[in-house]
Amino acid sequence: MTTYIRFTTTADSAIRSGVLDGDTVREYEGTPFDRPTLNGRTHSVADIVLQAPFQPTHIIGIGKNFAGEGEIKPDVPDLPILFFKPQTSVIGPNEPIVVPEGVSEVKFESELAVVIGKRCRDIRPEDAASHIFGCTIANDVAALDLFHPEGHWTVGKAFDTFCPLGPVLVTSFDYGSARIRARVNGTEKQNSAMERIIMPIDRMIAYISTFMTLSPGDVILTGTPAGADLVRAGDVVECLIDGIGSLTNPVRAARSAQ
Amino acid sequence: MTTYIRFTTTADSAIRSGVLDGDTVREYEGTPFDRPTLNGRTHSVADIVLQAPFQPTHIIGIGKNFAGEGEIKPDVPDLPILFFKPQTSVIGPNEPIVVPEGVSEVKFESELAVVIGKRCRDIRPEDAASHIFGCTIANDVAALDLFHPEGHWTVGKAFDTFCPLGPVLVTSFDYGSARIRARVNGTEKQNSAMERIIMPIDRMIAYISTFMTLSPGDVILTGTPAGADLVRAGDVVECLIDGIGSLTNPVRAARSAQ
Repeated sequence: MTTYIRFTTTADSAIRSGVLDGDTVREYEGTPFDRPTLNGRTHSVADIVLQAPFQPTHIIGIGKNFAGEGEIKPDVPDLPILFFKPQTSVIGPNEPIVVPEGVSEVKFESELAVVIGKRCRDIRPEDAASHIFGCTIANDVAALDLFHPEGHWTVGKAFDTFCPLGPVLVTSFDYGSARIRARVNGTEKQNSAMERIIMPIDRMIAYISTFMTLSPGDVILTGTPAGADLVRAGDVVECLIDGIGSLTNPVRAARSAQ
Repeated sequence: MTTYIRFTTTADSAIRSGVLDGDTVREYEGTPFDRPTLNGRTHSVADIVLQAPFQPTHIIGIGKNFAGEGEIKPDVPDLPILFFKPQTSVIGPNEPIVVPEGVSEVKFESELAVVIGKRCRDIRPEDAASHIFGCTIANDVAALDLFHPEGHWTVGKAFDTFCPLGPVLVTSFDYGSARIRARVNGTEKQNSAMERIIMPIDRMIAYISTFMTLSPGDVILTGTPAGADLVRAGDVVECLIDGIGSLTNPVRAARSAQ
């Protein structure tokens, strides 16, 4: 298993890429998806600040994709609710989620994020796993006030800072047996087995590939279990998946509202 | 005014960038947005095949943004219907729009596409024009069958080939007085003054900048006038805006349905 990160150091503001090797970070050039090359520089984990582990091209989310514990699971929908988040919504661990001015309802959602490693179109569910590069954690933040009454989630899902990603991108992860968890200010809000998912990850990837060519660096946010809740300025949200880590972000008000 | 294109030649399959100078294409390196540099190579217009004039990062569309001729214009909505199309939906002039298998209703929409040239967030409408790099034409194609009954247009708008762009990107264009036209198989389907727009372009850019940072290479599809209609395999769609040109694309069935 390789653990990919991006980070900054005290030396400058450059975002560097590295692989984690115990307490050592080995810096590499390029992206994780296209033959990254170690450049010989190493850092101590203690000396770096983590950033989002890679820069996605497309961020594709799915709505209403988990049943609660004890609920009867609905059938997999023929037409799932999908949405895009822009690249500009991505932030890294510990960066603040900014509550937009005038917005009263901001919701966090802890999710497994599956990163595509091979270009694909029209693949079968049984071929999906071989197109996955690795996994990370996403917090799919939304401003519910800005969901359009006719059903469009675009604006509510798209704000700058509304897609925390990280802390690391792992290339080997048994997502079938993952537990998706979240805490707000230390209180557990989500804790669900992946088994509660409605459209399974392999079918989701195959479905998306029926309409668009997926490429290395595209990321699929696989849906959030029961318990996602509202947060407000001053809160700290932690999204956790054992085997990947903990993605922690404070929530703050937009500057003009502080 | 500079007219930017991308093109291929018979020499190889490389997508090259150029500026039009009469019948001569002067090749440049880089993107139009970041100090493009002429590399000294020139081509005759007769010897090239046009491609989409640039590769957008984000493609942001707006729904229901034109009133018909003679209709009373509704107020500008507080929350417009916005959607993203993926980069993979882009094709160039004369490339086929592919009707997905099993889809019965594919609609074309002729639109002015406004290309962002300067990074911006939270700008005022009166500052929007200074952030525009230039304009091109888009055909915002959609598979209506795949609009989600709860209102999400994501899948229907996102298919590969569903965003023809071109033929050229012009840096000087009086979009306020533009006419948006379209023909299918030579028959006029759309012909509207830009004045029929509901949320004007400067307000649209300012609005989008309230939720996301816009950057050079992002493109905003500004909505389509009355008359957008269904097309089917065998049709030829032509989107026209005087001062930019004509964006023509044939429509064909997916391979497996041929």
